Amino acid sequence: MLRSIQFLGSCSGFFFHRLKLHGNHYGLSSRTPLLTSSRSPRCFRQFRASSIRSESNPETKSSSPSSSATFRSTGATRKINFCQSCGGPTKHEIPDGEERERAICTLCGKIAYENPKMVVGCLIEHDNSILLCKRKIQPSYGLWTLPAGYMEIGESATEGAIRETWEEAGAKVEIISPFSQLDIPLIGQTYIIFLAKLMTPHFSPGPESSECRLFALDDIPFESLSFSSMLVTLNLYIEDIKVGKPKFHYGIINKRPGTSPSEIHAYSLDYHLRT
Amino acid sequence: MLRSIQFLGSCSGFFFHRLKLHGNHYGLSSRTPLLTSSRSPRCFRQFRASSIRSESNPETKSSSPSSSATFRSTGATRKINFCQSCGGPTKHEIPDGEERERAICTLCGKIAYENPKMVVGCLIEHDNSILLCKRKIQPSYGLWTLPAGYMEIGESATEGAIRETWEEAGAKVEIISPFSQLDIPLIGQTYIIFLAKLMTPHFSPGPESSECRLFALDDIPFESLSFSSMLVTLNLYIEDIKVGKPKFHYGIINKRPGTSPSEIHAYSLDYHLRT
Repeated sequence: MLRSIQFLGSCSGFFFHRLKLHGNHYGLSSRTPLLTSSRSPRCFRQFRASSIRSESNPETKSSSPSSSATFRSTGATRKINFCQSCGGPTKHEIPDGEERERAICTLCGKIAYENPKMVVGCLIEHDNSILLCKRKIQPSYGLWTLPAGYMEIGESATEGAIRETWEEAGAKVEIISPFSQLDIPLIGQTYIIFLAKLMTPHFSPGPESSECRLFALDDIPFESLSFSSMLVTLNLYIEDIKVGKPKFHYGIINKRPGTSPSEIHAYSLDYHLRT
Repeated sequence: MLRSIQFLGSCSGFFFHRLKLHGNHYGLSSRTPLLTSSRSPRCFRQFRASSIRSESNPETKSSSPSSSATFRSTGATRKINFCQSCGGPTKHEIPDGEERERAICTLCGKIAYENPKMVVGCLIEHDNSILLCKRKIQPSYGLWTLPAGYMEIGESATEGAIRETWEEAGAKVEIISPFSQLDIPLIGQTYIIFLAKLMTPHFSPGPESSECRLFALDDIPFESLSFSSMLVTLNLYIEDIKVGKPKFHYGIINKRPGTSPSEIHAYSLDYHLRT
């Protein structure tokens, strides 16, 4: 699958974009700023791919299934019909002093804010292999993923990543370092992945997995991955390993216009920063 | 203010913690895992401080004011009284197959999930100084902060950080690199701060700020900062600058038991990882 990805290397810049958008040689939407490197030369690599797989929420049990729906800036509040506090019906307007439409309670006036969710997980290294789980639930039933799921209230990202790894892979892991933050604005999710290692060489599929398996880097099933975020994470990891040790990566996964969220290869990785 | 912080250097480890919690020489809560370094020696520094300032949500306008409330794992759903979808009353139970109490609609059965929110912002470097804003709104009226606020649906973390910087400081900035991710489990927030630079040397306070000013590192008003996250971020930055260039930091800000969220110095920085 790595062969099907076009690496469009470029050093560009992340310019302020509210007042005027600069020329964009990537063909990105006007909402999207550009990136530059100023502290030290950094090359912002853009990945493009064309084949089709499913994209959706990695976790339907421990967080909102509805969050896998496609969010757009102007339409995110339409599913909020009632106030969680008093039960009053909502109206959808731009509140005074704000710029975005919100769901506002017509009885108590409370505004229902919606924010992106964090998905936290582990990229587990063991004997030059990576631990993947085959999903036993929808979406992406039967496809491979890193253990990951929604971060819960009251826990940290590392705690959440360890918890999800236990729940999905029955593996006790130790966090090594942060590896990536990948924002997916279209679906209101941010993936935060940590490098980790097994504390013992034991793992077994949890209720959401049919199988867990260690894959050598050359054997990773790129044709059968469940989410764009996993594809990008694994690609970045392999690229890092080829040239040295893993770095920390920030990037934005922008789905290609007109494609479905279920098409995991239909994306570009924009504004890739590595430290 | 840096003088009042005890640096308790230690190399420890982030062990799996669900089945059995390992001995904890930090005196942390049993919820909190331990950290180790395995890829390369990393020193997990713990900051402790004792003086008192306010801690709360940095942004009351563009996201939920209610999210500044103290969240605890078992009590986060209690304010959800009605279903946002159908308006039915909720019950608060642990759903089948889950481990946490959720608000479940008694009419349509929909589960109302709550997840931590991301606060995104910029640490803006200009002529060996840092741009800070004095807050003109509650909470923390009159105290200094980096420009930051809640990430919105439909935007990336970098877009959100640039937007907030424009809204609060009237500054056009260019992102340089990710600088920190700081989780605050007690209040259900994760701070994601980027290093940035001014595209032009112009800035002016927005509606939420009474003043914006560049501070040389020795002049940063540590006694008048608004949030624990800002105190930690600025401390980490100064430490980095002293020894070289900024790194990427992950850490958990755990408020000291029994203290109010408004006491910004009553915390420990745990599981500090830098890359």
